[in-house]
Amino acid sequence: MYRIKNSKHLASVINYTNLSNMISEAEMTEFLNQAKELNFNTATINPTYVPLAKEILADSNVRVGSVIGFPLGFENTESKVGEALSLVENGADEVNTVINLNHVASEKYDLIEDEARQIKEALGDTTLKVIIESKILEDEQKANVVIRLENANVDYIKTSTGFLTPNHIYEIVNDINIFQKYAPKTKIEVYDGIDIWKMAHQVLTAGADLIASNNGYQIVSKYKELRENTQIKPKPITLKK
Amino acid sequence: MYRIKNSKHLASVINYTNLSNMISEAEMTEFLNQAKELNFNTATINPTYVPLAKEILADSNVRVGSVIGFPLGFENTESKVGEALSLVENGADEVNTVINLNHVASEKYDLIEDEARQIKEALGDTTLKVIIESKILEDEQKANVVIRLENANVDYIKTSTGFLTPNHIYEIVNDINIFQKYAPKTKIEVYDGIDIWKMAHQVLTAGADLIASNNGYQIVSKYKELRENTQIKPKPITLKK
Repeated sequence: MYRIKNSKHLASVINYTNLSNMISEAEMTEFLNQAKELNFNTATINPTYVPLAKEILADSNVRVGSVIGFPLGFENTESKVGEALSLVENGADEVNTVINLNHVASEKYDLIEDEARQIKEALGDTTLKVIIESKILEDEQKANVVIRLENANVDYIKTSTGFLTPNHIYEIVNDINIFQKYAPKTKIEVYDGIDIWKMAHQVLTAGADLIASNNGYQIVSKYKELRENTQIKPKPITLKK
Repeated sequence: MYRIKNSKHLASVINYTNLSNMISEAEMTEFLNQAKELNFNTATINPTYVPLAKEILADSNVRVGSVIGFPLGFENTESKVGEALSLVENGADEVNTVINLNHVASEKYDLIEDEARQIKEALGDTTLKVIIESKILEDEQKANVVIRLENANVDYIKTSTGFLTPNHIYEIVNDINIFQKYAPKTKIEVYDGIDIWKMAHQVLTAGADLIASNNGYQIVSKYKELRENTQIKPKPITLKK
């Protein structure tokens, strides 16, 4: 059983995410201030607001993540590399991309490895998280994909874009098992409709390194309320001699 | 009332579209052969298969369209321009992009004009279609956007990405009215769940220059069956003297 030590620890394994494409600067500022207040691992946002995030999160430990080739993943490799470099130039610490699922449909797995490698080489030390969109893949396809992603030295394999119906907890555990078996050295991030701390706990217990959630603020706040702000004063206990 | 002369004419105003992100090369080949068979105005497909489309459609009049900044539109302008150039290099005749809706939310309409202009200038003679995703905009926002797109000399204003619930025919007519009033010189393409020829007819009657549909093949085939393959032999009529 994964041990969540306290609310700070919980926030440190959450990627607080908002990938809405129609969010005003004022709303995004509020979101980023929440990320800063609770000191999440990462704030992942759309490319438009990467410079704003860099500014607001400058004096914090919160990493700035954004997305390329998102959410469909069918852009040319050359375009994805260009997008990635433009995010880094704007200050992103992490880049999330989606595999080209057409190549899965045509069983051209080598093209998936080649693309991941090209993006990772362009990014250098910047973290690369590659989303496989597990909801629409068969287990055999997932295994074939993650082997190639580990070969390409990506930093994280991530389950979902968050734009499809989220997987059930059993499907998430199945995904983690497949990732651990076929890409044992690569870290795992799960982004799959995690909206309460108990589900976060289940996913971490199953072996995820990070969870991404649009509800990070509520998850940590609720955990804090339940575990740290509860005023339980136990009655004195006299032990038997 | 728009007059559809025959099935060839109907196909000439349809952009046959397939923007699935998980389609094999064999399936895409079948789709492109359908586009060629009925001689559609355009085949719009994902970037992966632009070179294949160029090859299959080489000796036809069917234009090859693809997408950038799709379907969320929140990429940096620099990235969108890079994607556009990479599509042209692969042989695309048309580029579809989505406005950055964050700028609508923040009422930064000038940034929308500026981006459209930069993409159009990079594209030169290649057709630029700009999608406003009308489903999530207020009428006032639509008017403000389309004025700027006309200023930027885009070739078409397009209603939707096709990734949201499609608009009702009344909403489509309302959109066309707004486009005609605030961007009178720019052509109009409607992509909004048009799946039968009667709806195609309604949208063309309302003033659309082109309709985009995933069901182009079925629309034209059905029209052909109903209007051209029907064996009606009228009885001889003797007119009164």
